[in-house]
Amino acid sequence: MTTPDIFANCRLADGRRVDLHVAKGRISDILPAEVGPAGPDRFDLGGRLVVPGFVDGHVHLDKTLLGLPFQAHRPGDTVAERIAIEKAVLRDLPVPVEQRAHALVTQMSRFGTVALRSHVDIDTDWGLSNLHALLRVREAVRAIMDIQIVAFPQNGILRDPGTAALLDEAIRAGADLIGGLDPAGIDSDIKGHLDVVFGIAERHGVGIDIHLHDAGALGCFELRDIAARTIAAGLQGRVAVAHAFALGYSDQADVDATAEALARAEVAIMTNEPGPVSMPPVARLRAAGVTVFAGSDNIRDAWSPYGNGDMLERAMLIGYRQGMKTDADLSHTFAMATTLPARVLGLGGDYGLAVGARADLVALDATSVPEALVARPSGRMVIKGGRVLDHASSFSESASY
Amino acid sequence: MTTPDIFANCRLADGRRVDLHVAKGRISDILPAEVGPAGPDRFDLGGRLVVPGFVDGHVHLDKTLLGLPFQAHRPGDTVAERIAIEKAVLRDLPVPVEQRAHALVTQMSRFGTVALRSHVDIDTDWGLSNLHALLRVREAVRAIMDIQIVAFPQNGILRDPGTAALLDEAIRAGADLIGGLDPAGIDSDIKGHLDVVFGIAERHGVGIDIHLHDAGALGCFELRDIAARTIAAGLQGRVAVAHAFALGYSDQADVDATAEALARAEVAIMTNEPGPVSMPPVARLRAAGVTVFAGSDNIRDAWSPYGNGDMLERAMLIGYRQGMKTDADLSHTFAMATTLPARVLGLGGDYGLAVGARADLVALDATSVPEALVARPSGRMVIKGGRVLDHASSFSESASY
Repeated sequence: MTTPDIFANCRLADGRRVDLHVAKGRISDILPAEVGPAGPDRFDLGGRLVVPGFVDGHVHLDKTLLGLPFQAHRPGDTVAERIAIEKAVLRDLPVPVEQRAHALVTQMSRFGTVALRSHVDIDTDWGLSNLHALLRVREAVRAIMDIQIVAFPQNGILRDPGTAALLDEAIRAGADLIGGLDPAGIDSDIKGHLDVVFGIAERHGVGIDIHLHDAGALGCFELRDIAARTIAAGLQGRVAVAHAFALGYSDQADVDATAEALARAEVAIMTNEPGPVSMPPVARLRAAGVTVFAGSDNIRDAWSPYGNGDMLERAMLIGYRQGMKTDADLSHTFAMATTLPARVLGLGGDYGLAVGARADLVALDATSVPEALVARPSGRMVIKGGRVLDHASSFSESASY
Repeated sequence: MTTPDIFANCRLADGRRVDLHVAKGRISDILPAEVGPAGPDRFDLGGRLVVPGFVDGHVHLDKTLLGLPFQAHRPGDTVAERIAIEKAVLRDLPVPVEQRAHALVTQMSRFGTVALRSHVDIDTDWGLSNLHALLRVREAVRAIMDIQIVAFPQNGILRDPGTAALLDEAIRAGADLIGGLDPAGIDSDIKGHLDVVFGIAERHGVGIDIHLHDAGALGCFELRDIAARTIAAGLQGRVAVAHAFALGYSDQADVDATAEALARAEVAIMTNEPGPVSMPPVARLRAAGVTVFAGSDNIRDAWSPYGNGDMLERAMLIGYRQGMKTDADLSHTFAMATTLPARVLGLGGDYGLAVGARADLVALDATSVPEALVARPSGRMVIKGGRVLDHASSFSESASY
């Protein structure tokens, strides 16, 4: 693996040509590009676009079927039905969760992702076994990926007695955040479900990341409840809600009131561009002051055969669906896969193209961020902590993904 | 370029392993795979999935900005406004239409497209100049792509007097089909617009392909009018309507009645998965007997910075948006980029994986059609008329697209 002192001749998003100096894995200086000889200490990027590495704000490392032959999708009509089908699919897989998760992390890294937030199923059936597996994977891949873990009650909390205690235990065992799932749609008890989730967050001082598929007025009601509880708990800026399909529904006044509540509580919204269902309106939420960030969600798992972990493609899907076309809109969409999830994950000054930040970078065959988003060049060089990752050996002759 | 007699060890969509024998550019035999030595006459595909080449049912070769540096998108609020902006963008380009169109055809061929239907702008400003350019391109690329050309009144017919005569002239000059555009939304005269379009079709015995963005009840009204005229003109099976956003609107009874009329008249619907606007419901239309096929539409042009000409990605976008997940649904979505547009284009027995058909094929690093659609492998070998195309030299080490 190459660990040069200078990444020379980088094109930044603002058009500047610079040399990025790196020391101890961090950007130590950003200077106007100078001509110099290539060598082990000076890696010439030939004017390629260099951006901070991608951040995947929502993924399920324990669910992926990557590493196995392609599996035909088994459909289910309700969330509850699909939960049961997933159980059946995952129970007897010949490939353990560590191996599948590792395959997915490696693939995501190849595409240029340097940090991710993964949910992990916690229920009375799996117990903490998937969490322990992901904690091992996190250690194993530390050199290429930063992983945050959310203890996720995929099977509900109240409808699966014993889960609340397991979630508490999961945080003590190393999960970074507490999750939740459709307080109304799955547990049929909004207050009961959120009492457990916010209770654990307050007890352990951790952030919250809740899956919310509940639609329309019901989903908006729950979002406002979450916003109110966030302020009451002093958790502003540390709560995210994933999917929030309700924000895409047709009652504009309800959506606006909900957006205002989310902005006030600094609750962020994750979207993956959900395909056939309604999608949170990114520009409208942004105008209301709500951070909307991107994540892959399902990647080749029992929920969906789609997905590959490429956050540049994910940003394209979001931008395309939302009609983002101008350079400004495309640049914001790109931020949904870089700086915005970095902020939600709390990466702080460690992240970004700035002196002092970790040298977690991607070099792309593109001349600008808008072009990169629509063209999604396959030849990518990925740099993590100043090291050029091995899978980037395919950089010059174009990578295989 | 390689022109072997046998493409050996192919995996077909149904799982069979076969040797495809080719003579004079056509499939002469399909036999169970046999072990044999590789050589100039026997090209071993190593068990890769082999499918008929992709067919792009709707593209605008004259509009693309490919071959130029990336251009920032200039937004417009209405179709009329965007037409004017496009005029301004295209008027003074330093790269002529032939060169841009050629760049796009080459890129599409790399992705595995073997046939396409392109619209070409005809108006009193361009006259037939874009048509003449595309006719030259069609000749130049004949070895890698079959091109059908639709004379398209991008600027309207009635609102741009003189266009009707130019459209008629365009057909005489070599355009294969007559186009149309929003009879209500652009020309504000449904009868007047369709009289011209169907008049030209009947006079010259050509098919019809109409752009229809008009929404909701208005669009459905126009679709039923088109269906009725199709039957009256005896043009069943030779009329297509592109976009038809109206079919995605909320009045189910109106949509159902319209679908029934389209099915009866054998009017096919083209969708590219239109992003922010409503989309024709593929499964529902299919159940009603309507052929829905795929096209790229805009590829890096004044209308949209998105698009790359990859029909496998296009099929993924459609399948993802429409919630197609089972193997059967994914296979049907794949057909929307292969056999269904081939039927709409009237390719007949020339197309397909059958004895007698032209050897226009793509080999993919996938084990099945559903896997190919979700994974969209980049390493593709493209075979046109039995010849392995040069740009497939990157096949073994994975291509750069």
